[in-house]
Amino acid sequence: MAELGIPSLAELKGMEQAELDALAQTLRNRILEAVSQNGGHLASNLGVVELTIALHRVFDSPRDKIIFDVGHQCYAHKMLTGRDREMAGLRCYQGLAGFPKCEESPHDAYETGHASTAISAALGMARARDLRGEDHRVIAVVGDGALTGGLCYEALNDAGNRKTQLIVILNDNQMSISPNVGAISDYLTYMRSSRAWMDIKKSMTGFLPRIPLLGKPLLRFLQNVKGSLRNFLIKDRYFDTLGFQYLGPLDGHDERYLEKVLRRAGNLKRPVLVHVVTQKGRGYAPAEEEPWAKHGVTPFNPANDRPVRKSAGRSFGGAAGQLLAQLAGEDPRIVAITAAMTESTGLSSFKKAHPQRLFDVGIAEPHALVLAAGLAKGGMKPFVAIYDTFLQRAYDQVVVDVCLQRLPVTVLMDRAAMGGEDGPTHHGVFGTSFLRHVPEMTLLYPRSIQELEAMIRFAQGHEGPVFIRYPRAEGQKVAALPYAGFEPGRWERLLPGEALSLVAVGPMVEEAVLVREKLLALGIRAQVINASSIKPLNEGMIKELSKSDSPYVIMEEQALAGGLGSAVAEHCLSHGLRPPDQLFALPDAFMPQGSHEELLRHSGLDAQSVYQRLLSLFPQAHETAG
Amino acid sequence: MAELGIPSLAELKGMEQAELDALAQTLRNRILEAVSQNGGHLASNLGVVELTIALHRVFDSPRDKIIFDVGHQCYAHKMLTGRDREMAGLRCYQGLAGFPKCEESPHDAYETGHASTAISAALGMARARDLRGEDHRVIAVVGDGALTGGLCYEALNDAGNRKTQLIVILNDNQMSISPNVGAISDYLTYMRSSRAWMDIKKSMTGFLPRIPLLGKPLLRFLQNVKGSLRNFLIKDRYFDTLGFQYLGPLDGHDERYLEKVLRRAGNLKRPVLVHVVTQKGRGYAPAEEEPWAKHGVTPFNPANDRPVRKSAGRSFGGAAGQLLAQLAGEDPRIVAITAAMTESTGLSSFKKAHPQRLFDVGIAEPHALVLAAGLAKGGMKPFVAIYDTFLQRAYDQVVVDVCLQRLPVTVLMDRAAMGGEDGPTHHGVFGTSFLRHVPEMTLLYPRSIQELEAMIRFAQGHEGPVFIRYPRAEGQKVAALPYAGFEPGRWERLLPGEALSLVAVGPMVEEAVLVREKLLALGIRAQVINASSIKPLNEGMIKELSKSDSPYVIMEEQALAGGLGSAVAEHCLSHGLRPPDQLFALPDAFMPQGSHEELLRHSGLDAQSVYQRLLSLFPQAHETAG
Repeated sequence: MAELGIPSLAELKGMEQAELDALAQTLRNRILEAVSQNGGHLASNLGVVELTIALHRVFDSPRDKIIFDVGHQCYAHKMLTGRDREMAGLRCYQGLAGFPKCEESPHDAYETGHASTAISAALGMARARDLRGEDHRVIAVVGDGALTGGLCYEALNDAGNRKTQLIVILNDNQMSISPNVGAISDYLTYMRSSRAWMDIKKSMTGFLPRIPLLGKPLLRFLQNVKGSLRNFLIKDRYFDTLGFQYLGPLDGHDERYLEKVLRRAGNLKRPVLVHVVTQKGRGYAPAEEEPWAKHGVTPFNPANDRPVRKSAGRSFGGAAGQLLAQLAGEDPRIVAITAAMTESTGLSSFKKAHPQRLFDVGIAEPHALVLAAGLAKGGMKPFVAIYDTFLQRAYDQVVVDVCLQRLPVTVLMDRAAMGGEDGPTHHGVFGTSFLRHVPEMTLLYPRSIQELEAMIRFAQGHEGPVFIRYPRAEGQKVAALPYAGFEPGRWERLLPGEALSLVAVGPMVEEAVLVREKLLALGIRAQVINASSIKPLNEGMIKELSKSDSPYVIMEEQALAGGLGSAVAEHCLSHGLRPPDQLFALPDAFMPQGSHEELLRHSGLDAQSVYQRLLSLFPQAHETAG
Repeated sequence: MAELGIPSLAELKGMEQAELDALAQTLRNRILEAVSQNGGHLASNLGVVELTIALHRVFDSPRDKIIFDVGHQCYAHKMLTGRDREMAGLRCYQGLAGFPKCEESPHDAYETGHASTAISAALGMARARDLRGEDHRVIAVVGDGALTGGLCYEALNDAGNRKTQLIVILNDNQMSISPNVGAISDYLTYMRSSRAWMDIKKSMTGFLPRIPLLGKPLLRFLQNVKGSLRNFLIKDRYFDTLGFQYLGPLDGHDERYLEKVLRRAGNLKRPVLVHVVTQKGRGYAPAEEEPWAKHGVTPFNPANDRPVRKSAGRSFGGAAGQLLAQLAGEDPRIVAITAAMTESTGLSSFKKAHPQRLFDVGIAEPHALVLAAGLAKGGMKPFVAIYDTFLQRAYDQVVVDVCLQRLPVTVLMDRAAMGGEDGPTHHGVFGTSFLRHVPEMTLLYPRSIQELEAMIRFAQGHEGPVFIRYPRAEGQKVAALPYAGFEPGRWERLLPGEALSLVAVGPMVEEAVLVREKLLALGIRAQVINASSIKPLNEGMIKELSKSDSPYVIMEEQALAGGLGSAVAEHCLSHGLRPPDQLFALPDAFMPQGSHEELLRHSGLDAQSVYQRLLSLFPQAHETAG
């Protein structure tokens, strides 16, 4: 693909409209190229190319602050702010982040990754500006999906209260990750609809002059551009109640018109919401047609849209969803809940089989958990499918609504390991730490899909809260080992040995099997124990391990603090037992982006590193291997 | 006070209007009596007496489900559902709970305690009802304060989407705990205002017939009651957008009219919001005048409104607020943030001195933390004052917004201990567990106000996140001991001894001093160490303790799992050091309500219990003491 170079911000501001059109095409080509090679967020980035160009022509970054909500739509922004060359390393270990990253560039004003934070952050920065007597603009770019999160509403409510100058760009691509849900989504549809256009056509000259400050200039402005029907500005009732001046809806691919409205918005001395309608996936036909399937993608061939590598191992989430769909056919109490992630948490089959029993609540994790608590209280058996990292958002509801009431809610915590290329905001490495201390819960972490299925069947019959963490895909060696069945408080002696016990959980069971093989080569026979029941612990087996003559160690792919190793240590010290000899877990630091293998090495949790550290327990073997 | 007895629900339904007026008076007297003796939530309970009577006359509890948001307004409900006699034990150890408690009565449909959950829970119960083919009503009673929480909005948005039959009673008492804030509060004020009444008067006959389903009957209905001007129903634009049928505003003390509208609401087959305007503190003059000061009160004399006992010890929160106000006078970067709890977190003096630099965001803890992150990013030095238990609601924002970005946000976590009479939803006993594993943070827990002040000064100059937990009031013995100054990673040798080391944190330092005295009586000299720097640990001192010949134990008033003891154990096992000999912390269970002393005994953490358990480490002394 022949391409123009990417201009500097100064050059961008001087470009002609025809050049801008070519630039938009270049940016789209570069996005497609980078994402097809490295995977990433495709549809959302293709949708905001013109908007990003307009933002950087109208505003003066980094003096003006642009905050991207979620942040998965920042690729064009990164290229326009001096990071075009780094796009080849997008989402790679030590490469360019797929989300805003302040250490990369002063143009990344605030780091995001979890939805619905941008308006709050922008409001904080705008208030700091006012208190410091500074004079710049703060702009939050928020998708309509993120607007289902209550945090947005808390921020809008607060901003509207003090009339802080602030620009919120509502990037309305008509869906969040899954097609959008909720009353506000209906409202935005209405605002985009011809009915709304008709209303404005009829009454424009009537009501506009009555709007304080803005009305008359806007009317003149509209009269100047009339003929461009799709770009009328209409009156809204919702954001106005929240104290925001509403401007929109605008065609998000009409760069010239976007600029004009953004300049106006920048001159208003109050909170403004600019409603921009964009097409997710714009410019790449497969993404335009199925944007939800092109939200986060693995590497693919843009010529035929086929993936270029298969993901390793079977997916835990997909298997969980299939089993749930099957069980729900027999058990009318079963319902499933997702926070805008039906596909990625594996619930597609459930949705197909039982559409009335799947509740997609939008990006609203706290509500997902309380809704589940209410359903359980009403006699149902709710399963919430959610990413481990996003359950962080509903921690209080886990404590107060689910566990304090001992309700039979099951939470399926997907991606509960280092998540890879999405980086620190997406790893699921605190799940055991932020849950284990909550009373009344059962906390599990299967080594294989077969074990996950047994746990789900257990949860179906259990009269209390069950939390099951699991990674994306199954480990190949561990999946091949026979499985005898699950009960809480029981650990599995997976492979025999006398010289050492490797007590591992989740994805670390696979590494433990590899460590065992390495040790066997030195003549050291280690047993591997699958500690899949984190709460309750297997107290009998801990007693046995602590009374045996050989060392035992704990291995887990999550924070050391408050993890399984910590649980075993607490139990031992409270019961006068010999504690574990070593704890293998993540160090006290946020983990970067990278492949799962790279991150295991980075954190010293790959089989080779664990093996090396274990050799110190066997001085003689150490010399042999050394 | 001469009183009528409290009727059964069946009797209530048959009562005449004059009897109901007398009943309302009786309920108020009983509330005043119970709260003046035991402390509790006064103003909110006085405000909902007529509403509670109307709810129980119109609906059929426990078949119909009534869910009280927050739950601090359920006293009349408890008395009307068979718990009148237990009111004497309100909020006492093993007595009647101050919040809904399912084990007390089938009429308590759902347990609450933290704000903004009721609509979500009600929606879950309503959907369970529909899936099970049942036919009853689900009613959520929500204050206007709780409506500033994003979780309410997530639930409204979801409910409006599927048109689930559900009744939300907006109990608009025109304030949350502090006077209300935010754009929605302004909107409710507008809805209550004469301007709104005027609008309806003008256009009632015009627009009502056009409302689908409800309009014409409503118009007839309104025409039937005309003359009662304050009770007109007006058209709203906000809740309508969220998919709710709005009915209101109604006078919340006109029981007869409330009944009529609630009956209508119960017959609508869609989500309905009934806007009821109540007067907080109704019927008790001091509470009517200053309802925010009468939200949660300690025992008092209703004749002169004077407190009957002083709370023990100086308040940490009040001291923190005073110091912050003073520091802010010198340091223009300092701002303070509260989630609707200016008074109770001690920020009144700050508000008075620096009103422009205090941000009350409403009951919106996630927003409070992200706003702080934005302010820090913009160059300010934000201090968030919040209860330990309410920070649970912003755990994800602590991880992703504050700590991942290493922002200089300080969080002052008040009530970080067993909170007493408010029970399990209000204890601050998980703070160390849910924070300690988060990278980049400094986590502190002072033994005295003097130490807290030193920590705040440290935080002022520190370039990263600082979290400081503290209880309500200072321990008397510990406060009297001299203090040398604070630095992170340093523990304080508070009292000397050789036979044993008591490593204690927070309120347990006071108990450790008492334990030391008891041991001294047996001739055992224990040293007391104040481990006020939880993260970083004092690694040097741990090494020393582990290498000494005498035992050492950890004492903390919070969950064992993931606490300080766990931190010390992890450190020792990771560094080949001898771990602590015993861990004193809360067991794995939710703690009930009671006084701090009762709860210490309940959990085995009072000095006497700790002393008894420690004797096993000294077999000879054990016999002497035994």
